[in-house]
Amino acid sequence: MEVIDQLAPERSKSQFDVDAMKIVWAGSQHAFDISDRMARLVASDPAFRKDYRVTLGRKELFKNTLRKAAHAWKRIIELRLTEEEASKLRTFVDEPAFTDLHWGMFVPAIKGQGTEEQQQKWLPLAYKMQIIGCYAQTELGHGSNVQGLETTATFDPATDEFVIHSPTLTSSKWWPGGLGKVSTHAVVYARLITDGKDYGVHGFIVQLRSLDDHSALPGITVGDIGMKFGNGAYNTMDNGVLHFDHVRIPREQMLMRVSQVTREGKFKQSDVPRQLLYGTMVYVRQTIVADASSALSRAVCIATRYSCVRRQFGSQDGGPETQVIDYKTQQSRLFPLLATAYAYRFVGEWLNWLYTDVTQRLQANDFSTLPEAHACTAGLKSLTTSFTADGIEECRKLCGGHGYLCSSGLPELFAVYVPACTYEGDNTVLLLQVARFLMKTVSQLGSDKKPVGTTSYMGRIEHLMQCRCDVQRAEDWSKPGVILEVFEARAARMNVACAQNVSKMPNPEEGFSELSSDLVEAAVAHCQLIVVSKFMEKLQQDIAGKGVKEQLQLLCSIYALSLVHKHQGDFLSTGTITAKQASLVNAQLRSFNAQLRPNAVALVDAFNYTDHYLGSVLGRYDGNVYPKLYEEAWKDPLNDSVVPDGYHEYIYPMLKQQLRTARL
Amino acid sequence: MEVIDQLAPERSKSQFDVDAMKIVWAGSQHAFDISDRMARLVASDPAFRKDYRVTLGRKELFKNTLRKAAHAWKRIIELRLTEEEASKLRTFVDEPAFTDLHWGMFVPAIKGQGTEEQQQKWLPLAYKMQIIGCYAQTELGHGSNVQGLETTATFDPATDEFVIHSPTLTSSKWWPGGLGKVSTHAVVYARLITDGKDYGVHGFIVQLRSLDDHSALPGITVGDIGMKFGNGAYNTMDNGVLHFDHVRIPREQMLMRVSQVTREGKFKQSDVPRQLLYGTMVYVRQTIVADASSALSRAVCIATRYSCVRRQFGSQDGGPETQVIDYKTQQSRLFPLLATAYAYRFVGEWLNWLYTDVTQRLQANDFSTLPEAHACTAGLKSLTTSFTADGIEECRKLCGGHGYLCSSGLPELFAVYVPACTYEGDNTVLLLQVARFLMKTVSQLGSDKKPVGTTSYMGRIEHLMQCRCDVQRAEDWSKPGVILEVFEARAARMNVACAQNVSKMPNPEEGFSELSSDLVEAAVAHCQLIVVSKFMEKLQQDIAGKGVKEQLQLLCSIYALSLVHKHQGDFLSTGTITAKQASLVNAQLRSFNAQLRPNAVALVDAFNYTDHYLGSVLGRYDGNVYPKLYEEAWKDPLNDSVVPDGYHEYIYPMLKQQLRTARL
Repeated sequence: MEVIDQLAPERSKSQFDVDAMKIVWAGSQHAFDISDRMARLVASDPAFRKDYRVTLGRKELFKNTLRKAAHAWKRIIELRLTEEEASKLRTFVDEPAFTDLHWGMFVPAIKGQGTEEQQQKWLPLAYKMQIIGCYAQTELGHGSNVQGLETTATFDPATDEFVIHSPTLTSSKWWPGGLGKVSTHAVVYARLITDGKDYGVHGFIVQLRSLDDHSALPGITVGDIGMKFGNGAYNTMDNGVLHFDHVRIPREQMLMRVSQVTREGKFKQSDVPRQLLYGTMVYVRQTIVADASSALSRAVCIATRYSCVRRQFGSQDGGPETQVIDYKTQQSRLFPLLATAYAYRFVGEWLNWLYTDVTQRLQANDFSTLPEAHACTAGLKSLTTSFTADGIEECRKLCGGHGYLCSSGLPELFAVYVPACTYEGDNTVLLLQVARFLMKTVSQLGSDKKPVGTTSYMGRIEHLMQCRCDVQRAEDWSKPGVILEVFEARAARMNVACAQNVSKMPNPEEGFSELSSDLVEAAVAHCQLIVVSKFMEKLQQDIAGKGVKEQLQLLCSIYALSLVHKHQGDFLSTGTITAKQASLVNAQLRSFNAQLRPNAVALVDAFNYTDHYLGSVLGRYDGNVYPKLYEEAWKDPLNDSVVPDGYHEYIYPMLKQQLRTARL
Repeated sequence: MEVIDQLAPERSKSQFDVDAMKIVWAGSQHAFDISDRMARLVASDPAFRKDYRVTLGRKELFKNTLRKAAHAWKRIIELRLTEEEASKLRTFVDEPAFTDLHWGMFVPAIKGQGTEEQQQKWLPLAYKMQIIGCYAQTELGHGSNVQGLETTATFDPATDEFVIHSPTLTSSKWWPGGLGKVSTHAVVYARLITDGKDYGVHGFIVQLRSLDDHSALPGITVGDIGMKFGNGAYNTMDNGVLHFDHVRIPREQMLMRVSQVTREGKFKQSDVPRQLLYGTMVYVRQTIVADASSALSRAVCIATRYSCVRRQFGSQDGGPETQVIDYKTQQSRLFPLLATAYAYRFVGEWLNWLYTDVTQRLQANDFSTLPEAHACTAGLKSLTTSFTADGIEECRKLCGGHGYLCSSGLPELFAVYVPACTYEGDNTVLLLQVARFLMKTVSQLGSDKKPVGTTSYMGRIEHLMQCRCDVQRAEDWSKPGVILEVFEARAARMNVACAQNVSKMPNPEEGFSELSSDLVEAAVAHCQLIVVSKFMEKLQQDIAGKGVKEQLQLLCSIYALSLVHKHQGDFLSTGTITAKQASLVNAQLRSFNAQLRPNAVALVDAFNYTDHYLGSVLGRYDGNVYPKLYEEAWKDPLNDSVVPDGYHEYIYPMLKQQLRTARL
C-alpha cells in the first residue's frame, strides 16, 4: 500500500524554518547531529524493536531487556562510540535497564565520592563492564529521610573490615534498579559505626554476586521486588531487595574522598569539602528536568499529530468532520502543554549551565551560590516532573478513547515517567526545602546579604509589593516585561505573606509546619517565575532561522499566560492583577492559540523524534493512523486463534447450561 | 507469625460510631447486608484470588477471567442469588469481563429499545446466558459523534432482511467490550437505509458467532483490539473490532420499540416517545457517578491507612519517626479526597432518586424535567470521573515510592478507572452540553420559563449577582448557608458572564465555540454547586449513630472549602469573596483537617472494604505492611531462580568481554 503523508497539508501551513528550530531544540548543531544519528541507528536496527513489549510476561520481558542491553553494548564497542554517543544511544533504546544505574549512579558515585586510588581501582572495571554496579540507598522503611537509614557498617579492627548488616526487616535495601537480578556490585549506603560510635550514613562498595556464576555471595539475600505500574515500563528493570547478614568487606571499600576510617578505626574528615557532594545532586536533578522536557514533548507530539488526523462532529453537506485540533477546548488544553515542553527544554539548558558554574565555583572553594543553586534545582525538579506526569495523562485524554490503547504509546510513557515525581526527592518534600530557603531569603531582606541568582528579584521587594499591572487591553499581555513583573510580584507577595504568617505563630518551626501547604504554593510561584524568566532570557539570544524566534516568543507567551490563568487565584489574591485583567488574559490566550494553530505540527516535528522512539500509532509522522491501528490489533496474542483458549472449559458449558455440574 | 492490628491505636481514637457510618455509606441496612455478604463470599473463595494477575501474559490473563466469570455464574446459580446480589458479587470479583457488557448494556438495550415481542424472544435467552451479548456502537473513526457512524443496515424487501455492512475501514466497530472473543450476539448500531433513504442510526440484534463451535459467522471478521493501559486492568476484557461484509439478518432483529420498518420497507415512528431512550442514559451515568465514589474511596482507604503506618523524619531522642498523616501537606492533599469520596457517594444516591423520578414522569408523558436531568447527569458524570482519575493518582503519590508497586493496588486501580473519563461521553464534550443548557437557562431568565431543579438557584439571579459574602473570621466558613451562597453566586456570575461574552460575538454559534474554554469552567462551577448542595441536603436528614452526623458535617465543609481554595480564582474574579476571605478559607481548612485527623482511619473503615477487594498491601486492614511487602516480592516470577534467564547469553559474555564475537 502506498503511504502518503496525511499531515502534509499541516506541514505546508507552517510559518517558520523547521530545520532551524530542530537545532534550537537540540541545543546545538553538534547535539542535533549526535541525537539524529543515534536515533536513526536504533530505529533501523530490528534488535531494538519495542512494539511487542507490552504483551510479554515478566520473565520474557526482562530477558528481552538483557538482550537489548547486551546488543547496545556490542554496538557501542563495534562502532567505537564516544561516551556522549553511547549515552544517546541508550536513550533512544528507550527501555529502562540496569545499565541506567550502572552509568548514571554507580560510576558517578565512585567518581564523586571515591579517592583517587579508589577511582583508579574501580572505574576501569566499571567502564569495561567487567563489573556491573547499582546504587543501594533507599530501604523498605526509609526513603526521603536518608539520615534515617538503618543498614549498619561496623568497623572490625581485628580484621580491618567493615561488617555490613541489615538489623531489621525495614532496613532491607528496596527499590535500587539493577540490584534484583543483575548487578555484581553496589554502592551501599549504611551507618558507619566505629569505636562504638555512629558517624551517620556513608557509601561502601560491596560485591553482591560471584563474577563466575552470578550466585549471591554468602550473607546476601537478593531478589526482585515485583511488578510495577504499566505493562512494560519499569518492569524491564530489576528493582531489587537486598538483605545483609554480617557481610564483610575490606576497609578500603568505604568511599573515602570526604571521610575516612583509619586502620585503627578512627573516623576522620578529609579536607575535601562535603559540599562537593551537592554538585552531584545538582547534576542529577538537572538531567531530570531535561528528561521532563523529553517526556512531555513526546506526549505532546503524539497528541498534536493525532488531533490533526482525528475528526469529530461539524460535518457540513456530507464533507469531512472538523479536525479535533480546531476545537478551542482542545487548543486551550494542548497548546500550553506544547509551550511547556519548550519552556522546560530551555530551563534545562540553563540548569546545565548552572551545574558547570557551580562546579567551577566549588573547585575554587566558592560555596556562596550553592544554597541558591540547590533550592533552584530542587524546585525545578519538583515543578517539571509533577507537571509532566499530569501533562502526559492529559495528552492521553486529548487522544480520546484510542489513547487508552498501548499502541498509542501514551500509557507506557505515563507509567514509565511517573516515578520521577518520587525518586531523587519526593516533590512535596523538595518544595518544602525551597520554601525554607525562600523564608530565609525573605528574612534577610534589608540586611547586607543580598538575594542572588534566581532570587535576585527579591532585591526589588519594595517595588514588587506595591507595583500595579497596567494591562488595559488584551494585547498588553503580549509584552514580556509586563508578564515578568506579574510573576515576580506574585512570587514575592506570596512568600512575604507566608513569612509574615509564620512569624505570627508561637515558634517558627511550628509555624512552618502549620502553614506548609501555603508555603508549598509560594514555592511553586517562585519556581514558575524561574521557568518564565529563563525562557525570556533565551529569547534575548540570537536565534537563526526564518520565523523561529517569532514562534518561540509565541510559545513563551502561551506558557506564561496559561499559568496566569491556571493560577489566577494567586494573582488576584495578592492583588497583582485585577479581575478585568484576568479576563483579558483569556482573550489574549485565545488569540495566541489561533496564531499557533497553523504551526502546531511543525513545532512538534522540530523535536525530530523517529516513529520508533515515539512508539505510537497515533503519533506517526505520516498520520496514517487508522489502517495501522487496525493492523496492530491483529498482532495481539489473543488473536492467534479465532476461538480463544478457555472456550471449551468456560464459555461452551455456560451457553449450554452445563455449568452446574462442571468442576471449575 | 501472630498478626496484631497495627492500626488499633488509630481506631481507638475515633469519635463516632463506625458501624452506623457503614450503613450511611451503604445507603441502607439492606444495601449494607448484601454488600457485606457478597464481599465476604468473594473474598473467602480462592477461585477469585487476584493477587497474581499482574504477572500473567495476555492469553493467560484472559483465560483466567473466563474461568472466574464461569465460576461466578456457577455460584450465582447454586446459591440462587437475586439479580441485586449477583450484580454485587460481580462487583466484588473486581475484574472487567464480558459479563459487564452482557448485563450492563446488551440486556438493558433490548429492554429499552425492543418491542414486547422482541423482549419475550431475546431476554430469556440472555437471562440464562444461552446467548452472550455486547453493545457495538463506537467505530474506529467515530466515538463522540454517534450520528456520524458509518455502518449501514440496508433493507432488502426481496428477502425481508437487513444487510449489515462496513463500507470503510473507519466504520469497523472498535472498542465494544466482550466483542473480541466471547459474545455470540451484539446490539449493533448502524444507519438504517430503506427505500434509498438514510434514516439515521438505529440498533439491530446481530448474531456474530456460531452457538455450536464459536466460529465467526459468514461475512463477519472479529477480533481483539490489543493491549490497553495497565498490567491487568481492562486487559481481562476482550474489547473488540468487528467488520461486516454484507451480513444478512431478519427484519425482526431491528430494535423496533421507537421506530419500525414495515414488511414493505416503510420507515415508521411508533407512538412511543423517543425521549424514553434518554432515561437509559440517565441510568447509565448515574451508575458511573456511583462507581466514581467507589473507586475514589478505595484509593483513599489505601492512602489513609498507609499514611498512618508510614513514618518519615521527625524522630526525637531515637524514638519513632512522625506518622506521615500528621504532616499538614499530607492532610491538605488527602483529606479533601476523603471528603470527595463521601460527597460523590451522596450525589450518586441523589442521582438514583432522580432516575426514578425521571422514569415516573416519562411514563406519565411528562418530559419537562428531562433537559435539566440530562444536563445534570452529564455534568456530574464528567466532574466526578475526571476528579476521581486524578484523585487515584494523587493517592498513589501520597503513598511515596511504594505506591508505584502493583502490590499497592493503586496502579491497577488507576489504569482500570481512567477510561471512565472517555466512555459514555467524553468529559469535555459533556461539559459543553451542560454549558449549552446553562446558556439557554440564563437567556430565559426573566421570562415565564422558571429554572427548575438544580438550576433553580438561577431564579434568584438578581440577589446572586450582587450579594456579598460576610465572612469575617475563619469560623464563619463553617456555616453551610454561607458556603452554599458563595457556590451559587460563583456559578451564577460565571455563567452570566459567559452569556454576556457570547452575546458580544458576531453570532451565537461562533461565540459559543470561541469561548468554549470559559464555558467549560462555568459548567464545572455549576456542577460543583450541585455536589455541595446535595451533600448539605443529605445532612438535613435524620442520621443515626453517635457522632456520625458531626463527621459528615466536617467532611462536607472540607469538601466545599477545599474547592473554594482550589478554584479561588473563580471566586475572586467574580467578586464572590475577597482576598482576605480566601485566606480565611485556608485557616479554617487547617482547623477542619486537624479535627478530622483522629477519625481518618475510622472514616475509611466505614467503606467496609475487604482486603481482597482493596487488593493492596499498603491498605491492609491490619496495617501489617512491611512484612507483607517483603513476602509479596518473592512471588514475582523473576525470583523463581537466583540466576535470571538470559544470564548466560547476555550478562556473562558482557562481564567476560566476549560480546564482540557473540551473535545476539
